[in-house]
Amino acid sequence: MSLLGGLDRHITQSRPRFEEWLGRLVEVPTVSMDPARREDVRRGAGVAIGYLKELKADAVLVETGGHPMVVGGWVRNPAWPTVTVYNHLDVQPAMEPEWTREPFKFSVHGDHYYGRGTTDDKGPALTALLAAHYAVEQNLPLNIQFLWELEEEIGSPHFAKGLKGAAWLRSPDSVVVSDTIWLAGGRPAAPYGLRGNLAARLTLETATREAHSGLTGGVARNPLTELAAVVSACVNARSGRVTIPGFYRAVKPLGQADRAQFLKSGFQVAAFAAAHQLTKLRVRDRAAVMRRLWAEPTFEIHGFVGGYTGPGVKTSIPPRAEAKVSMRLVPDQEPAAVFSLFRKYVRKLNPDIRVEADGMLRPYAADLGGPYAEALRKALRFGFGKEPAFIREGGSIGAVVTMAERWKAPVMFLGLSLPEHGYHAPNERFDWGQASGGMKAFVKYFEEVSRIPVKRRVR
Amino acid sequence: MSLLGGLDRHITQSRPRFEEWLGRLVEVPTVSMDPARREDVRRGAGVAIGYLKELKADAVLVETGGHPMVVGGWVRNPAWPTVTVYNHLDVQPAMEPEWTREPFKFSVHGDHYYGRGTTDDKGPALTALLAAHYAVEQNLPLNIQFLWELEEEIGSPHFAKGLKGAAWLRSPDSVVVSDTIWLAGGRPAAPYGLRGNLAARLTLETATREAHSGLTGGVARNPLTELAAVVSACVNARSGRVTIPGFYRAVKPLGQADRAQFLKSGFQVAAFAAAHQLTKLRVRDRAAVMRRLWAEPTFEIHGFVGGYTGPGVKTSIPPRAEAKVSMRLVPDQEPAAVFSLFRKYVRKLNPDIRVEADGMLRPYAADLGGPYAEALRKALRFGFGKEPAFIREGGSIGAVVTMAERWKAPVMFLGLSLPEHGYHAPNERFDWGQASGGMKAFVKYFEEVSRIPVKRRVR
Repeated sequence: MSLLGGLDRHITQSRPRFEEWLGRLVEVPTVSMDPARREDVRRGAGVAIGYLKELKADAVLVETGGHPMVVGGWVRNPAWPTVTVYNHLDVQPAMEPEWTREPFKFSVHGDHYYGRGTTDDKGPALTALLAAHYAVEQNLPLNIQFLWELEEEIGSPHFAKGLKGAAWLRSPDSVVVSDTIWLAGGRPAAPYGLRGNLAARLTLETATREAHSGLTGGVARNPLTELAAVVSACVNARSGRVTIPGFYRAVKPLGQADRAQFLKSGFQVAAFAAAHQLTKLRVRDRAAVMRRLWAEPTFEIHGFVGGYTGPGVKTSIPPRAEAKVSMRLVPDQEPAAVFSLFRKYVRKLNPDIRVEADGMLRPYAADLGGPYAEALRKALRFGFGKEPAFIREGGSIGAVVTMAERWKAPVMFLGLSLPEHGYHAPNERFDWGQASGGMKAFVKYFEEVSRIPVKRRVR
Repeated sequence: MSLLGGLDRHITQSRPRFEEWLGRLVEVPTVSMDPARREDVRRGAGVAIGYLKELKADAVLVETGGHPMVVGGWVRNPAWPTVTVYNHLDVQPAMEPEWTREPFKFSVHGDHYYGRGTTDDKGPALTALLAAHYAVEQNLPLNIQFLWELEEEIGSPHFAKGLKGAAWLRSPDSVVVSDTIWLAGGRPAAPYGLRGNLAARLTLETATREAHSGLTGGVARNPLTELAAVVSACVNARSGRVTIPGFYRAVKPLGQADRAQFLKSGFQVAAFAAAHQLTKLRVRDRAAVMRRLWAEPTFEIHGFVGGYTGPGVKTSIPPRAEAKVSMRLVPDQEPAAVFSLFRKYVRKLNPDIRVEADGMLRPYAADLGGPYAEALRKALRFGFGKEPAFIREGGSIGAVVTMAERWKAPVMFLGLSLPEHGYHAPNERFDWGQASGGMKAFVKYFEEVSRIPVKRRVR
């Protein structure tokens, strides 16, 4: 039987294992952002190692200095090509009031799987794992390595260090990342670029305890008011245009080929707005929306800490406050350089504010075309019966730039999530349609990649 | 024995009752702002009625449509002058992390009384009550009525309606309010004016669930960013100058007599900053500080709701956000007129923002001088051995303007709190020094007031 001949039956048989394993993994709250979840994150890594071992793969826990990472897989013949499959097993916090189920309780409703991390990124990780296991069982001449990070949601602060320490990992010929999102259900996307990100916290203290705004107001400095003024000076709230001096200096203008790919992607503004439940948009022009999402930088305010948030209005002045902000960056903006511009601007506006970076991810853009892009195209067509759109993606994956630079290998994106799955959102979900099609696509991708001639390098 | 002869001994003997009653009242969390405390507020009113009855005073619970109010006292002879003593028995929330004790557990440490409401305003209320009881027992020819509000901290929304329904209350010849703060320990203040207040909530919804800032950022509208921009456009965060068009139009310039009173008040900037634990001030010039606190309006941001406030930075865009703001107002700013200016300005800046008033209090300024001011001066000198400073106060007491207008009676301020007692702040306290001196001052004030000839009015 050929590699692909018995695949459908295999996938159907895999479903109970897929659901059981996804459920077990989702119920470990691997919230990398929350210091109180440190042990849970490590426990999640342990569960993943258990899965690899159960499939007779190698599996190694790698210490990074932060949360650990997991590497493993099947490396059977040094002469074969090697692919590294990247996913992350940490998740976002799940404190949104809109959750209608326990976020860390896995539940299956028909073909849908609910719980924090189902789509971002535990479901895609297990999809790739079960596909690889099948390919290996069918004796495909390809070494398949998994690299599962547990700090993706906090900007991969120890990823480069972890990679250096991951002695088990061979330098691969290519990398495939499964952590991106389609344009819509039935509209696969193969991104060839990601935005970067720079997160920062601004803090200001003007007193050591809360003050009465009647007794002190007019003389007491209000840290919330001052922070609001400074962050408001960084962006035009309505247009989204960033007003930090020099912010756009390094932005590379979007090329004609990119524009053409975007326009033929099939992206629809109304479907985008509906998928993300956005009731109001800054712009509705299709080309402008795609350009803004995929190729322009942003400045967002994510939260203010400090002050009164209960019912009504408590007229007191908080002693200290914090503003949480981030900027999505595009080629060729360097996060460290942008942070310098930002900090310099904030200091000029208000020298008492402390500015701390809270994660930096460089933007990434690969070349369009080439044999790996062709493999991806065939894989997605085989898995889902549809041609993928080659677009960029607005999100950021910190590990991508690090892997591309370390291994000088192409990084491809075989994502399986749908916009309505709710990346980072309440009631996150994944579904069997994407998982089963994803297994087909991954097996096909592995087959294609196993045939791409590789340059032998001294390892 | 004269009225004042046995007073010191009486006060010493009253201490156990004062402490027991204050403790019992403090331990009822009468947080008027919190809908969940509705029954506690009512229970607090019941405790207060019990105290009045135990002293053989009349006591009536008055329904207002909101939290009830309590009226009662001793009206023994219609020919005598009548004074109404105003206090409030509701308190601020106590959610500040700086509390080192349970806020609603009363504790006595030497001469100090700790707990939410000890100084604002339960301690002063009971001080006035026990002083009045003594004066009545000594047969002072004065009718003394208590008016205890339970909605002061939410801007007295039902006070005017409550007054209309309080049939037991006679229209008094004068009113004394005990809810203000001295310049410092040993520096009594007799304010002759209060700032008004206008609180408002701004809300904006741009989506029905949280969005991923990578997947939607640049196109999704960010309600926190938009609210921050709008409230930042209302005030210069560093100078405090309000930038709402027309905001200062009705402000009456400060007169020469006011300036002179301020300058001779003994107010000290360093002591003020220390008492409120302010480590940074907008200005330090003494005259400028007093003018800003007592005679200039403000615009404060008290809190932003919506967005992420946990550890680190979660790079999501909230679906909705709220900004809580307030403005202190000075004569002759009308809160309703200022609210119109504010709402018009916000709508111009961002028509999608909903603006709701959350309480309006008119500013108040009495004339300097006259027999009641003289009575107050004598009372504070008798109680504490110091001349009071006649100043204004930066805080607001909603009931004051309502009482002054309804009864056409002078409203005087015999406050007993010290800046370090922590109005609205964590670790609020009161002390026996202020309570015992306050009882002396109130007895003396009642004596003085009983001698002021009153115009007989048709009641």
